[in-house]
Order: sequence, then C-alpha cells, then structure tokens
Amino acid sequence: MIFDISWPISKATTGYKDRSIVSIEEIKNFNRDGVRETAVHLSSHTGTHVDAPSHFLRDGKTIDEMHLDRFIGDCIVLDMTTCAERITRDCLIAHDNDIVEGGIVLLRTSNSDISPTDKFSPHFVYLEASGAMYLAEKKIKAVGIDYLGIEHSQPGHPTHENLMHADVAIIEGLRLGNVPAGKYIFVCLPLNVIGTEAAPARAILMEKRSS
Amino acid sequence: MIFDISWPISKATTGYKDRSIVSIEEIKNFNRDGVRETAVHLSSHTGTHVDAPSHFLRDGKTIDEMHLDRFIGDCIVLDMTTCAERITRDCLIAHDNDIVEGGIVLLRTSNSDISPTDKFSPHFVYLEASGAMYLAEKKIKAVGIDYLGIEHSQPGHPTHENLMHADVAIIEGLRLGNVPAGKYIFVCLPLNVIGTEAAPARAILMEKRSS
Repeated sequence: MIFDISWPISKATTGYKDRSIVSIEEIKNFNRDGVRETAVHLSSHTGTHVDAPSHFLRDGKTIDEMHLDRFIGDCIVLDMTTCAERITRDCLIAHDNDIVEGGIVLLRTSNSDISPTDKFSPHFVYLEASGAMYLAEKKIKAVGIDYLGIEHSQPGHPTHENLMHADVAIIEGLRLGNVPAGKYIFVCLPLNVIGTEAAPARAILMEKRSS
Repeated sequence: MIFDISWPISKATTGYKDRSIVSIEEIKNFNRDGVRETAVHLSSHTGTHVDAPSHFLRDGKTIDEMHLDRFIGDCIVLDMTTCAERITRDCLIAHDNDIVEGGIVLLRTSNSDISPTDKFSPHFVYLEASGAMYLAEKKIKAVGIDYLGIEHSQPGHPTHENLMHADVAIIEGLRLGNVPAGKYIFVCLPLNVIGTEAAPARAILMEKRSS
C-alpha cells in the first residue's frame, strides 16, 4: 500500500504567511486548440518541499547537489500529537529506540488536521532547536514535518541551522493525517531544479513487508 | 544503487519545439536578506513529466486523478538504439518476453545522447502508433521515453491516444544514457498539482536485489 503524503498544489494552496505562491496558467484550451496545456508558477517552498542548505547557509549545497538517497529509505512516523506547541528534545527522547543513525524521522503533529487550503496558521507545531540538536546528534539523514515550516521565524533559524550543519535533510509540508505512526519506506523526490535553495517534491510512504 | 533519470531543470532546459518554458525568479537574496528564496515558473511538460489523459482526451483524467502506483514498480529498460528513427511493433516484439502485463517499460534510444540543453531535436526517436498499440495490448501500466515527446506532431496524436485509451501512463523526458538495459524498480513522482493535464516529475531507477 502506498500513502501519498504530499500537499495538494492549486491556486488555493496555503502559502507561508499567506503569501500568494501558486498560479496555473492555461496555455492551450481543449475547445479552442483540441489539447490542454498549462504552465505552473510556484514558490520553491510550495506545499511539500525540500529545503537545501543554501536556503540559510552562505556556502550551503543547492537542491541538485543533495544526493537522492537522503530522501529514500527506512522511516519512522512518530506520533507527536502529545507535544502541543513545539517538539523538544524531551518529546523525542521518549522515542529514542526508534530514532536511528541513517534513518528518516517524520513528525506527525496536530498540524495535519489543518486543511491544505486554510489560512496560514502562525501557531503551527514546530521543531524546537533542542529537538533539532537531538536529531542531529542521532545522525538521522532526514526529518520531515507536517506543516509549511519546521520552525517559526526564530532569530537565526536555529532549528534549520542545527539540522543543516549536521547534514540532516529537511522536508516540509507533509500531510500525515491518514498515516498511522510506525515504520515505513519513505520516498520523497524533489524536482531536479539546478541551483535553487529548495524544490517542490512529491512524497510517499510504503508499508514495510514484515520480516 | 539509485539512478537519477530525471532531466535537469534550469533556464537552459530544452523546451518542446524550443518554446521557452522555465524561468527561475529570485525572491530573496542572501547578501541582502540573509536567506535565499526562489520561485519557479515552468510548463507542466518541462523535462521529465507525466502526461495525463486530459492532455488529449476531452474527458480524460487529470494528473491528480491518476493513482501513484501507476508510476511505481517493476520495470524493464529496453535498448532500442537499433531502431534508428521510430519504435514500431516489430522493434518491441523482439522483447516480447520482457514486456509483461502490469509492468513498466522504458525505451532507451539515441535520444539520451542529446544534451538536456541542446536545441530541440525535431527528429527525435519516437514511439510509432503500432508500437503504442502493441504496448496497449500487452496491458503494461506505464511507458517512458528519453525525449520531451513520445511522438512527433502526428495528426490525431495516435501514439498518445492508443496509450491513453488503454490506460497506459506516459512518462516523457527521461534521461537514460547512464542506465544499462535490464530490470529495475522504477519510481516516478509527479508534483501533486490539482486539475492539470500533466506535471513535472522526478524519476529514479533502483537496482533489483537478485532473487
């Protein structure tokens, strides 16, 4: 079974801080041209997307410089709904055995209850710097969260920087409302855009065969 | 091992018939804003992409209505470099045993030798209507080719229509130059755009474990 955990992209898609981020342009019209054709204009941070280190680090890698194996592999979806406002080191330590070196951690919070077209929710549940540091120490290869950002506008972006300096990939804008906590195979494929600090992506979870 | 078989996306990316299809807009600049941020404007048919049936069929499904399992699964990469101009039924029948119901077929041609930023090549190797009909009869679930179209501008688009009427998904704009012919697991994830006739995608091949 495949779980599509990607944010739907449309003109109505919630933008970070309600910025307008998506437009879909009709190039050819079926009745007029006998064929449909569109173009899409979107922020690199639309919906489900990967933040590359160059988003915040002067000499950070761009999206095309990141190896795809960072976004593919064994994954644990953690139920973080008990952490009401922010995910701290203590929230994560409760799952210490499931957070392993080289693994991928997805944080399922109450954010997944927000509709993908609602107004931007400035009080979304975020990963606190202490939680990011813990995940960096655990040497996971990627972390994902179910909102359009992984932290609020904290001065210095400590969550992003802790993760980026430790080479932990960041996936934002997942939709985890229909996914039970547990172990999966995760595949997230960002568009192959050259030189940008992020790219929109499609992400899925596949059930693991019991071994 | 993971093979990235996606077309790089940049301002220089070859457009179908050399139409300009990609622009990358700088929203925030690192020196000025302390953060990098871009927006991407692109045709839904840029580089590696999936054509949905609504591209050519009046009542065809849009990209978001296609099940992702159509783009994920067992795959055969066929060496079609012996078919110099077009891939016919006869070219494919030579591989009849490897083309199986529910499978995914990728056609590796001399198109993969063309640089992804060259001028558009109007004489690209394409899948002829007879080849498309054969693949439809074999009930494969998807076919991919290594150029920006799967046919030339044939009147009535018979290749597309043969495939779409038979519910064979179409993936265009793959890059197969570095991939040996053989069996793989294929994963292609198009962006989750609502209501469009196509979407840009990232596509990979994974080596199969020997059984």
